[in-house]
Amino acid sequence: MIKITFPDGAVREYAEGVTALDIAKSISEGLARKILAASVNGQVQDATKPIYHDASLKLLAWNDEGGKSTFWHSSAHLMAEAVESLFPGTKFWVGPPVDNGFYYDMDLGGKQITEDDLRKLESKMAELAKKNEVYVRKEVPKAEAVKYFQDKGDEYKLDLLQNLNDGEITFYTQGGFTDLCRGPHIPNTSFIKAIKLTNIAGAYWKGNEKNKMLTRIYGVTFPSQKELDEYLAMLEEAKKRDHRKLGKELSIYTMNDDIGAGLILWMPNGTVIIEELEKLAKETEQAGGYKRVVTPHIAKENLYHTSGHLPYYADSMFPPMEMDGEKYYLKAMNCPHHHKIFDAEPKSYRDMPYRLAEYGTCYRYEQSGELFGLMRVRCLHMNDAHIYCTKEQFAQEFKAVNDMYLKYFKIFGIDKYVMRLSLHDPEKLGQKYVNEPELWLETEELVRNVLKETGVPYVEVKGEGAFYGPKIDVQIWSAIGREFTLATNQVDFAQPRSFKLSFTNKDNEAETPLIIHRAPLGTHERFIGFLLEHYAGKFPVWLAPLQVKVLPISDKFMDYAQTVLQSLKNADIRCELDDRNEKIGKKIRDTELAKVPYMLVIGEKEMNENRISIRRQGKGDAGSKSLDEFIGEITAEIKSRKSE
Amino acid sequence: MIKITFPDGAVREYAEGVTALDIAKSISEGLARKILAASVNGQVQDATKPIYHDASLKLLAWNDEGGKSTFWHSSAHLMAEAVESLFPGTKFWVGPPVDNGFYYDMDLGGKQITEDDLRKLESKMAELAKKNEVYVRKEVPKAEAVKYFQDKGDEYKLDLLQNLNDGEITFYTQGGFTDLCRGPHIPNTSFIKAIKLTNIAGAYWKGNEKNKMLTRIYGVTFPSQKELDEYLAMLEEAKKRDHRKLGKELSIYTMNDDIGAGLILWMPNGTVIIEELEKLAKETEQAGGYKRVVTPHIAKENLYHTSGHLPYYADSMFPPMEMDGEKYYLKAMNCPHHHKIFDAEPKSYRDMPYRLAEYGTCYRYEQSGELFGLMRVRCLHMNDAHIYCTKEQFAQEFKAVNDMYLKYFKIFGIDKYVMRLSLHDPEKLGQKYVNEPELWLETEELVRNVLKETGVPYVEVKGEGAFYGPKIDVQIWSAIGREFTLATNQVDFAQPRSFKLSFTNKDNEAETPLIIHRAPLGTHERFIGFLLEHYAGKFPVWLAPLQVKVLPISDKFMDYAQTVLQSLKNADIRCELDDRNEKIGKKIRDTELAKVPYMLVIGEKEMNENRISIRRQGKGDAGSKSLDEFIGEITAEIKSRKSE
Repeated sequence: MIKITFPDGAVREYAEGVTALDIAKSISEGLARKILAASVNGQVQDATKPIYHDASLKLLAWNDEGGKSTFWHSSAHLMAEAVESLFPGTKFWVGPPVDNGFYYDMDLGGKQITEDDLRKLESKMAELAKKNEVYVRKEVPKAEAVKYFQDKGDEYKLDLLQNLNDGEITFYTQGGFTDLCRGPHIPNTSFIKAIKLTNIAGAYWKGNEKNKMLTRIYGVTFPSQKELDEYLAMLEEAKKRDHRKLGKELSIYTMNDDIGAGLILWMPNGTVIIEELEKLAKETEQAGGYKRVVTPHIAKENLYHTSGHLPYYADSMFPPMEMDGEKYYLKAMNCPHHHKIFDAEPKSYRDMPYRLAEYGTCYRYEQSGELFGLMRVRCLHMNDAHIYCTKEQFAQEFKAVNDMYLKYFKIFGIDKYVMRLSLHDPEKLGQKYVNEPELWLETEELVRNVLKETGVPYVEVKGEGAFYGPKIDVQIWSAIGREFTLATNQVDFAQPRSFKLSFTNKDNEAETPLIIHRAPLGTHERFIGFLLEHYAGKFPVWLAPLQVKVLPISDKFMDYAQTVLQSLKNADIRCELDDRNEKIGKKIRDTELAKVPYMLVIGEKEMNENRISIRRQGKGDAGSKSLDEFIGEITAEIKSRKSE
Repeated sequence: MIKITFPDGAVREYAEGVTALDIAKSISEGLARKILAASVNGQVQDATKPIYHDASLKLLAWNDEGGKSTFWHSSAHLMAEAVESLFPGTKFWVGPPVDNGFYYDMDLGGKQITEDDLRKLESKMAELAKKNEVYVRKEVPKAEAVKYFQDKGDEYKLDLLQNLNDGEITFYTQGGFTDLCRGPHIPNTSFIKAIKLTNIAGAYWKGNEKNKMLTRIYGVTFPSQKELDEYLAMLEEAKKRDHRKLGKELSIYTMNDDIGAGLILWMPNGTVIIEELEKLAKETEQAGGYKRVVTPHIAKENLYHTSGHLPYYADSMFPPMEMDGEKYYLKAMNCPHHHKIFDAEPKSYRDMPYRLAEYGTCYRYEQSGELFGLMRVRCLHMNDAHIYCTKEQFAQEFKAVNDMYLKYFKIFGIDKYVMRLSLHDPEKLGQKYVNEPELWLETEELVRNVLKETGVPYVEVKGEGAFYGPKIDVQIWSAIGREFTLATNQVDFAQPRSFKLSFTNKDNEAETPLIIHRAPLGTHERFIGFLLEHYAGKFPVWLAPLQVKVLPISDKFMDYAQTVLQSLKNADIRCELDDRNEKIGKKIRDTELAKVPYMLVIGEKEMNENRISIRRQGKGDAGSKSLDEFIGEITAEIKSRKSE
C-alpha cells in the first residue's frame, strides 16, 4: 500500500499502481468525470498514469492550473488527427497549449487552408471526439521512434528526435493518430465537447525566417457548448473594448516614431485619469501613514550591483550612458533609490514602520516585437512603495497592504481576483532562495494567515517565490472575464542586507528591517489599459476626462448655457460647452460617442425655469433638475468614486 | 553739433566731442556726481570719452547695468595700485569685475598674503581713493606697450600683449599705477568710498593646472559705507540661510554617490513642498485653461535634430543610449514631446489657444565642478507649459502668463523683480535670429505693450533674444536681497515650422501657430533652493512639511493629545505628536529648531477646559483656544497661502 496526501492534508492508503482516475472514482463517479489530469508531487501527469510510491496528489479539473492546459494540449492532437484525415500526407512540427487555446504548426505540402477548411476540420474533430478515443501513452526506444517517422516521412518529428535519448521518448496515440509527445493528456477525447478553430497564420519553422514557412492553425475547445459560446461572446466584446482602439477614439494616449516604441505620450484625457488615480493613491497612502518621495530616473552602475540587478537583470534594463567615466542607467525599479533615502538619516524603532511611496517612472527594455499598446511598454509609471518594518510589525503592515488592494478592488468594481502566493522551495535554499529557512517559514505563515483572515481568495505555489522572499501576484478579471496580472506584493529579506540598512532597536542595537515592496494599482500603463477594457471606455464620473457637456439647443440659449458652464467650473467639475451651430440631435450623438457621462440640454423651458435637462450617457433622458441640485448630486457621485 | 538720443526718446544737440559727463553736468551737478560710465549706442564706455557723432546715450549710475561692473573693474585697478605700493615687484595677470565685486590674479614672487595684509591693503586703497586720482585712458602703439612691460619685468602682461595689435591697445593710469586694459573705467577714484577685501585664493595661470599658481584676491567696494555694511550683513544672513545647510537640517533633500552628482533625492519633507507647489501650479493652470500631459523622459535622436537641439545643444545633454540600432537621449527640454502631442490629432481654430502643461523632468549635463546644491543640478523638474496660439491670440495669452508670474510673486512675498526683455538685432536677422523682421517687431511690440500695461518693472536688452523669438528672463530678489534668475518666458516662431505644426483657420487653410514657452515657477530644484533662503527655512504654513506639533506636558495628557492629533489629521493638517518622555521645554526647543509653524501645548488646564495652548514658531505664546477655533483659523491660513 502507498500513502496519498491530499491538498487538505488528509492522507489515505491505496494499492501500489493506483491511478489518479481510480482515486477520483473511489471518491465519486461524478468527480471522476471531471478529472483531466493530476498533479503528483507537484508534477502534472496523466490521470491514468499508475502511482507506485507515497505521494501528494491534486486532482486537476477544468478550472485548476494544469487542467485546462492539458485539455488544450490534447485538443491540439485531436486537431492533428482531423488534419491528417482530411489532408493525408501532412507533416507535423509542434502543437502546444497557449493562454487561450492551442495551435499546431504543420507542413501541408503547399496546400492553402481556407476558412471553409476550418469549418470542415471542426466537424471532423467533433466526430472524432465523440468516438471517445483514449489517449494511450507508450514509452518507445529511439530506434523504433525514428523508424516510425521515417516510414511516415515526417522530417520535422525526426528533427525533434535528434535531441532525445532512449528513455526520454514517449508516443501518445488516440484513434488513428500517433504523435511524439511528452504529455500529459486527458483520459479520452469525449471530454472535448465544443470546438472552435479561430485563426490560420504562417510561422517560420523554429521561428527562423530563413526556414520554411509552416501553417499554424489556432483553436480553442471547451467541455461544453455553453462555455464556448460565452468565450466567443467575450472575444467579440473584447474586440470592441480593445484598449488600443478605445485609447485612440477617446484621445487617451498616443505614440510617435520620433519618440520611440513603447514610450507612451499621455494626452490630456489620459492625464486626467492618471491624476485621479494618483489622487486616490495619495489619499489612501497618506491615510495609511506613507511618506512621499521624489527620486531621479537614473543612477550609477554601482547602485545596481549592490541591489543585485546587475548583471542578472541587465537584459531588461536600458543600455547605459557613459558620462565622466561612469556608467549611468535608467532605473528599472525604484527600490534602490528609496533605500538610499531610508539610509540618508539614522533611523530608530520610533521611525518604524517607515513607508516611502512614489509614482516612480521606470524604464524596462522589452523586445520591440513584445511591445503591445499600454500592456507591454518601455516606460512605466508605477504605484510604488517600500515599507521598512520590524519583524514584529510585519503581519500588521502586510495586512494593511492587503486591505488596500481590497479597497481598490471595490472602488473599481473588480469582483473576481485571486492572489497567487509564491513560496520558497526548501531544497533550493542558498541557491534559488536566500538561506533563511526560519524567516521564510515565519513570513510565509504570516502572509498565509493574513490571506486567510481577510478571506481573500488565494492559491499557493511552491517554488515560485522571489529570491528574497515570498511573493504575491495579484490576478484580476475585467468585467468581460479577461484575466490580467495587476501587480505584485513582495517580502524582501535580501536587499536590506545588501544595502546595509538598519535601525536602532529598543535595546539600542542595530537591527536589519524587513521590506515590503508593493504596487496595488500596478502601473498607470497597464491599469489604465485594463480600465479601458473593464469600463468599455465609459469611465465612472470621477475618472471621466470630461464629466459634463453642456448642449444648448440653439444660440438663443448660449448665455444661459455659459452661466451653467461657469457654475459647473466653479464647482470643479470637468465640463465643456458645445457651442457649435449644430442640431441638438447631432450634439447629443457626438457627446454619446465621446462617452461623456452627463449631458445638460439647455432650451427655452430650461432657461425660463432656471433648470437643466439631464441625459446620462447610454441611458437617455434623466429628467430635469435645478442646477444646484444637479451639482450637489454629481459632486457627491464624484466624491464617492462610485463605479455606478 | 551732434544729436544725442536719450532713453525716453528725447533728442538734444551738443557740440562734437562732448563727453557723457559733460552732458550729465549740463543736466545737474548732482546727477554728474553719480555717473560712473555711459552706454553709447549700446556700448559701455568711459563717461569721459568724447562723442563725435549722433548717438543714443544712457548715463550709467550704480544701479544701472554696466555702472556697477565698471565701478568694480576700477576698484580692481585701485587694489593693484595698493598691492604694488605695499608689495613692490608684484606682477599682474587679469583683474575683472564679477557678480559680487572683483578679483585680481597676481604673482607675488613667493610672498604669502595674510588676513592682516588684506586689512593693510584696504587702508592703502582708502588712502589712494581719497586722492581723487583720475583714470586716464591712452591709446598706445604695440612696440611702446611691449617696452613698458619689458622694463617693468611683467611677463604676464607681455603674454596678453602677444594677441593684441596696434590700434587695439589702451593703457589706463590712475595715480602711479598703469595697466594694460580695454576699460571702461569710472571718472576717478573718489567714487570708491567703502572697501572690503573678502578672500584670498590660489588660481592657476590661465586656469591650467600645469601652470604656475597665482594669488587671487577678491574684494568688493561700494559708493558708501552704508551700502557695504548692508552687503556684509546680507552675506552673514545668506550664510545662515544657505539652502544646502537648511536643506540638510530640515531634511528637505539629500544626494548620494551611488546615484550620482547633481541628482537630487527629495526626502519626505522636500516632497511635501514639491506637492504643494504642484498643487498651486495645477490649480492656477487649470483656471487658466491649460490641459495637462505626461510624457516620457527619453526620445530618439531624430526628435532633437528636428528641434535643432542636436547637434548644437549636445554638450548640455546627457550622452545617448544605443538600443535596437537607434540612439535615445534623455530629454533636456519638454517642448518636442509636447509638439508631438499637439500634432497627434488635427487642430482647428476652435482648439486654439491650446495650452499643454507638465511638471516635466529634464536632464542636463553640467560639468561636475559647476554643480551646486539645488541651484545647479543635472535633473530638473520644470514647471513647464507650451501655449500654441494664433497671432491674434498672442497678446492676450502673453498677458495671462505675465499675470500668472505676478500672482506667484504675491503669494511668495517676492517684492523685488525685474523682467529682462531680450530683443533681436536687426543686423543679424537670418544668422543669429530667424529671418522674420515683421514678426520680430510685431511680437516685441506686443510683449512690450503687455509689460507696460501691467506696469511690471522691465529692461530691454537688444541682441539677446533667443534664435526663435523674443525672450523674457525673470529676475527676482530674495528677502535678504540676493538676486536669482527664476525662469524664462519665450516666444517661438521657429519650432512650429520645423515640427510642421499647423491648425485649420476660419478660412479652412492650414496656418502655423505661435508658441509661448513658459515656466513661471522655474524648476523645483532652483525654486525650493530660493525659498529656503527667502524664508530662512521658516516656510509659511501652507508649504511647511510639518504644520503642527502636539506637545503634551506629560504622559498624563497623552490621551487628550491623541484626540487633538486625530482631529487635526481629520482636518487634513500635517501634524505629529511628540510622545517622547521629555520635559516640555526640551520639546518646545526641538520643535522651534525644526521650524514647525505651530506648537500645541497640552497640559492639565488644557485637558480640563478642552482647549489648547498655542505657540507660534519664533514668536512664543499665542494664547489659548478651543481646538475647533484653532482648526478653523489654521485651515483658513493654509487655504489663503499667506506668507504671513
